[in-house]
Amino acid sequence: MEVHVFLLQLAMVLMAARIFGELAVRWGMPPVIGELMAGIVLGPSLLGLLETSEMLHLLAEIGIILLLFEVGLDADVNRLVHAGAKSLIVAIGGFVLPFALGFGVAHYTFGLPVLASMVLGGTLTATSIGITVRVLTDLGRRHSIEGQVILGAAVLDDVMGVILLALLYEFAVAGEVAWTNALRIALFVSVFFMIAPAAAKAISYLIHRFEASSGVPGLIPTAMVALVLVFSGLAHFMGAPELLGGFAAGLALSRRFFLPFGVALAADPGFADLIRDQMKPIVRLFTPIFFVQIGLSLNLQLVDWSSSFIWTFSLVMLLVAIVGKFAGAMLISESGPRRVVIGMGMVPRGEVGLVFTELGRDSGLLGGGIYDVLILVIAYTTLVAPFWIKWFYRRHAAELEPSVPEEDMGYPSLPDQGGTGPPALAGGHAHRVRSGRR
Amino acid sequence: MEVHVFLLQLAMVLMAARIFGELAVRWGMPPVIGELMAGIVLGPSLLGLLETSEMLHLLAEIGIILLLFEVGLDADVNRLVHAGAKSLIVAIGGFVLPFALGFGVAHYTFGLPVLASMVLGGTLTATSIGITVRVLTDLGRRHSIEGQVILGAAVLDDVMGVILLALLYEFAVAGEVAWTNALRIALFVSVFFMIAPAAAKAISYLIHRFEASSGVPGLIPTAMVALVLVFSGLAHFMGAPELLGGFAAGLALSRRFFLPFGVALAADPGFADLIRDQMKPIVRLFTPIFFVQIGLSLNLQLVDWSSSFIWTFSLVMLLVAIVGKFAGAMLISESGPRRVVIGMGMVPRGEVGLVFTELGRDSGLLGGGIYDVLILVIAYTTLVAPFWIKWFYRRHAAELEPSVPEEDMGYPSLPDQGGTGPPALAGGHAHRVRSGRR
Repeated sequence: MEVHVFLLQLAMVLMAARIFGELAVRWGMPPVIGELMAGIVLGPSLLGLLETSEMLHLLAEIGIILLLFEVGLDADVNRLVHAGAKSLIVAIGGFVLPFALGFGVAHYTFGLPVLASMVLGGTLTATSIGITVRVLTDLGRRHSIEGQVILGAAVLDDVMGVILLALLYEFAVAGEVAWTNALRIALFVSVFFMIAPAAAKAISYLIHRFEASSGVPGLIPTAMVALVLVFSGLAHFMGAPELLGGFAAGLALSRRFFLPFGVALAADPGFADLIRDQMKPIVRLFTPIFFVQIGLSLNLQLVDWSSSFIWTFSLVMLLVAIVGKFAGAMLISESGPRRVVIGMGMVPRGEVGLVFTELGRDSGLLGGGIYDVLILVIAYTTLVAPFWIKWFYRRHAAELEPSVPEEDMGYPSLPDQGGTGPPALAGGHAHRVRSGRR
Repeated sequence: MEVHVFLLQLAMVLMAARIFGELAVRWGMPPVIGELMAGIVLGPSLLGLLETSEMLHLLAEIGIILLLFEVGLDADVNRLVHAGAKSLIVAIGGFVLPFALGFGVAHYTFGLPVLASMVLGGTLTATSIGITVRVLTDLGRRHSIEGQVILGAAVLDDVMGVILLALLYEFAVAGEVAWTNALRIALFVSVFFMIAPAAAKAISYLIHRFEASSGVPGLIPTAMVALVLVFSGLAHFMGAPELLGGFAAGLALSRRFFLPFGVALAADPGFADLIRDQMKPIVRLFTPIFFVQIGLSLNLQLVDWSSSFIWTFSLVMLLVAIVGKFAGAMLISESGPRRVVIGMGMVPRGEVGLVFTELGRDSGLLGGGIYDVLILVIAYTTLVAPFWIKWFYRRHAAELEPSVPEEDMGYPSLPDQGGTGPPALAGGHAHRVRSGRR
């Protein structure tokens, strides 16, 4: 690709994300909807001005990894552990039910082959953590009980989904279920999640020590991005999706992360703030690329809208996709509205679902309209859930009041640079003023 | 390219740049030397662990564009205009002399064909502004008299070099010199440099106005990067190199930029500071990629070191490359040491020189060792000039004392995040404290 073509393409993605995001907010929608719409409008679905390129895809991948890094950095580990049991129930319920229902309906009702039905069921297990996290962040509810349960469940879903994907991939290639490989992958992912945060913590400790004597400006942005990228690469080699590496790195550097054997590496809250301040513009730059890219990768013109099979099949699958995830959330003991929000939050399928469909298409298992239907279902779950969540929060504001307001959670709230002043630095600024008073 | 391969490649580039940069500083060299060495050591010249890819090339391009944006943002236009006449003399001298000498020696002494000799002469006209600017910044002399003269001359050299490149390209393709096209390109570039800053200023004014009512975080990083990329694309369409678009955008947003008809768009110094604070981590992230990429794009193993023609030809060309640029600097009225520094600052050829050699290779004009020699000369000028400049500044510290210290130039000095505290935000912080007192 020629340099200037790529530069203008990237500029177009950034500008479209910004304009559609701002319009979405004016119309009462979360900005992520605007960014997805930007991709759909500019992409092959509508205007055809832009299409995904390998380069855009890689930048989008960096965007989602950095977003998960920020999510990890902001995560309250105490709460995540507290939400652990509930997350586990929601994750397992929201994984087993859509898979079983999807497989059953596809195989027994619509008569699809076993393997195609399994890939189809697998597609419905994914949860697009990025979209729900963004919606909850926009609503200021990322740290709420339901937010933590969704976050934990989505991470677990991603891990389970990727193990299933590896399994189905083996199955498709070899023609038989390779259980030993599945066990190996499960083991690797578990080991990664036990070792990665400790390693990231140790490395960040070294970076912090080294910072005082560094002779070259820009240590934090370059070293942190390199760290996040290395962990993403490691996650891949352990058989996990890359974005989990970003999440693990962020988690390890968060202010409240606690390592049983890491007392010597006690976190410096000021350093966590510094990392957040320096990384925020970079995260904000890359993240919208991911959401625009999802919109660009959908091609709604590929769908044969006149086929009645398409309509019934897609409606049934949509029902399965929604009911499966909702049912998982109903299994836990929480207030009704919270369970509904958790169920809604699990609905968007996004990127991992698209990875499944790509596998199905590449291996020739999903042909003749099935692929289109899946893209449609993924698009619909991804596009619609944010509306629902927002609408539901407005309707049930009283029941969903956070028990602890977001501002009082012990760390400075995360001001964004979209405000009136120069508040992007207010967090670090406030921190330094506080240090000054000591 | 697979995602995880790219992520690890990028992480490797960032880490190598950091490690070699820090080592360079420990050994008394500017970090840019370390970053170039990182590319040479990891690249095909030595270890062969990494090679340039299209992705890396595009990210490097963004890096150099953003660096020039920062240079423009920090530029003191009063001084640039003041240095204007001198820059013009240095630029023309450092353009005409290397071209004439290079052409003459290649054609009349070594008997190369006319067209190949012209491409060869053209290669020697370029000035790699990025490397010299980085060295001067590292030495804290970017705003010195000599720094401003070099900056202005290098920008003019780039413009003239690109016009020459377009001319030679036309010549190579058509077999005749297309003077009308050359005039058109010269006209476009002039128009671009008259219109671009005004347009960038107007757009940034709109962004500033819009900032108060924006509903989505991250306006400044996304909008600013998009603006810079658009201007780079426009520069290309006007026939100028992309990085000049970044420079024009930065110049327009600098605190002291003055538009004759732009009184209504008076600059808000606080907004310029805010842009600088938000953009700095992004610039620091992308810039090292460019310098590592230059190192990676050199393959010193391609050079046939046993050929005596290679040695004589390369030494003569190196002499021409250095003498031609030095002679240009000797034409102005400045103190001796300053003229030497200016001459040295013009020596590195870097990226524009490489563009010329690529043209020469692609069109088949530069074969049989000539291409290797040019790569060698470019590598040598690019690698060696920073050493000279640094050594010369140490030796002639007294004569080169800045008439105005860098700190007292009316805007806060630019602290980097490599220091002891969290000083990356100190500029903005200081500004806010100051505002608070008003």
